[in-house]
Amino acid sequence: MLPIAVDAMGGDNAPDAIVEGARRAVDELGVSVVLVGKPGEMGDTGDLPVIEASEVIAMDAEPGSSVRKMKDSSLVRAAEAVRDGNASAMVSAGNTGATMASALLRMGRIKGIQRPAIATPIPVPGSTPTTLLDAGANAECKPEWLVEFAQMGGVYARDRFGIERPKVGLLSIGEEAGKGSPFVKECFELLSDPAWAAATDCEWIGNVEGRDVMTNEADVIVTDGFTGNVTLKTLEGAMRAIMGRLLMALDTDDDTRAAGAALGPALDTMVSELHPDSVGGALLLGVKGVCVISHGSSSPDAMVNAIRVASEMVEVEMVDHLTTAAASAAD
Amino acid sequence: MLPIAVDAMGGDNAPDAIVEGARRAVDELGVSVVLVGKPGEMGDTGDLPVIEASEVIAMDAEPGSSVRKMKDSSLVRAAEAVRDGNASAMVSAGNTGATMASALLRMGRIKGIQRPAIATPIPVPGSTPTTLLDAGANAECKPEWLVEFAQMGGVYARDRFGIERPKVGLLSIGEEAGKGSPFVKECFELLSDPAWAAATDCEWIGNVEGRDVMTNEADVIVTDGFTGNVTLKTLEGAMRAIMGRLLMALDTDDDTRAAGAALGPALDTMVSELHPDSVGGALLLGVKGVCVISHGSSSPDAMVNAIRVASEMVEVEMVDHLTTAAASAAD
Repeated sequence: MLPIAVDAMGGDNAPDAIVEGARRAVDELGVSVVLVGKPGEMGDTGDLPVIEASEVIAMDAEPGSSVRKMKDSSLVRAAEAVRDGNASAMVSAGNTGATMASALLRMGRIKGIQRPAIATPIPVPGSTPTTLLDAGANAECKPEWLVEFAQMGGVYARDRFGIERPKVGLLSIGEEAGKGSPFVKECFELLSDPAWAAATDCEWIGNVEGRDVMTNEADVIVTDGFTGNVTLKTLEGAMRAIMGRLLMALDTDDDTRAAGAALGPALDTMVSELHPDSVGGALLLGVKGVCVISHGSSSPDAMVNAIRVASEMVEVEMVDHLTTAAASAAD
Repeated sequence: MLPIAVDAMGGDNAPDAIVEGARRAVDELGVSVVLVGKPGEMGDTGDLPVIEASEVIAMDAEPGSSVRKMKDSSLVRAAEAVRDGNASAMVSAGNTGATMASALLRMGRIKGIQRPAIATPIPVPGSTPTTLLDAGANAECKPEWLVEFAQMGGVYARDRFGIERPKVGLLSIGEEAGKGSPFVKECFELLSDPAWAAATDCEWIGNVEGRDVMTNEADVIVTDGFTGNVTLKTLEGAMRAIMGRLLMALDTDDDTRAAGAALGPALDTMVSELHPDSVGGALLLGVKGVCVISHGSSSPDAMVNAIRVASEMVEVEMVDHLTTAAASAAD
């Protein structure tokens, strides 16, 4: 397999955490990695090969114009490495919008997909994650895009989590067909046509609600990028608030502190299960290549997971499966 | 104070849990309550007075047509009791849509408010709750309605939680002004006009994100009823999933079970703080009367809290404050 191009300059903890994660991924997973970044600014890159890039797109830069102007940025060079057959996938913890724009402009869209979407796996205690998409690529969507998201989400859930016939639901505010905004009702109509689900071997289960996201009610939940991003960040906030409150409860008195110490390993397991880092980042689906978008705050652990996911998606040929699904839908 | 009209027939656990909660509210809070329901079907109503209603709107009935047709339903009669000066407020754990429709059609709208909104307090560990509105009354909104929601939310946060100058944010997918859907950007523009905040003594803090809902970043968060409802239910689902996972962690082995037992009281405090029932239900803001919408699954405890909130909002004259705010905005 071609190496995975890792944007060494992207993320709040770049380049140190990124380079450390990349080196660990090579050691622990046996994958090959090429770092993309500014020579002399990446710290100790060990034996890793490097694609040189003289520019860095800042975390808060305007995505579209940055990608157009900064042709020698690490993000753009990483996407070009995939396009040019020098890398099998790209991974970045940098500016999300610029990562999407680089991938879209350099790799191009899969035929039949109007808009790429961010697919984010949400941890579900005791079960496979629920894949939520679009988690933020498109703040406004057309109803027909959600049918494409449904297909791509189904392919991804199968390739990533081994779910044979993924259950796909539409995020709404009631389970009945008539519930939701006019936009959601239109999406429901389009998604109720059995053709797309048959073509991708998915099961369309109709509307689901916010409370179903962290259950195994659905394997894939489709929504517009605004609602998806609000949902994702609401979950992150809830997780942080509840965990913070739990730590307070454990710190009530000497007895609870002792109990907390005894619970340590069990709670660590729980936290790592529920932590977004553990699922290894989001994927930009719909571009001609594997593009993993990791949290801005990615730790070395998160990078190892992101690189693992990237290599698995290359291995299983997810992009080919997405391409076939999009072609069959267009028939 | 006039009695609070409690819909004895509404809710998954009606009438038993409702009547028990109403009786306990009278005993524990010293408020007066009038039950609204079918004579002979409410069980042991004790000394509570009753307004008779021969019909019950089912939990899954279509709200608009039910309210129009079932003029002798408990929900419609409860709203009429407020309108006619026979009750100071209404409380229901029944069909949410029908509760809204009854209140809107019988009590009428406050002048200057185009659409009532559901305001739901979200628990924030260690701080006052964040009031989220609209939490589901209007699946599609016009941008100008959100300015009214902001004013109403500010008045409510002050009256309910004693926050002198509530911080009001707009739910979006990035903190910068330019982030969000076209709808949200339009809302941002309108909310950036300082007039409404000055008139209601609020502080406009701009965009907030899903991760801020359970923090004290904002006291009030405005959004359309679709996004608000998804957010609310996502939080409920996260709470349930994380608590369920915590119970699993506590049940790992004999040591963790012992630790769990030692943690019992501290965890109970935590759960009751984070439980939606503890904040006492949502309010329908914008109608000419206090209308508390309690969870469909309301327990007697939840009803006691809902009745407490209703009586507090009557006592503090919240509806007058909303009316003044709406009038000043219209100037």
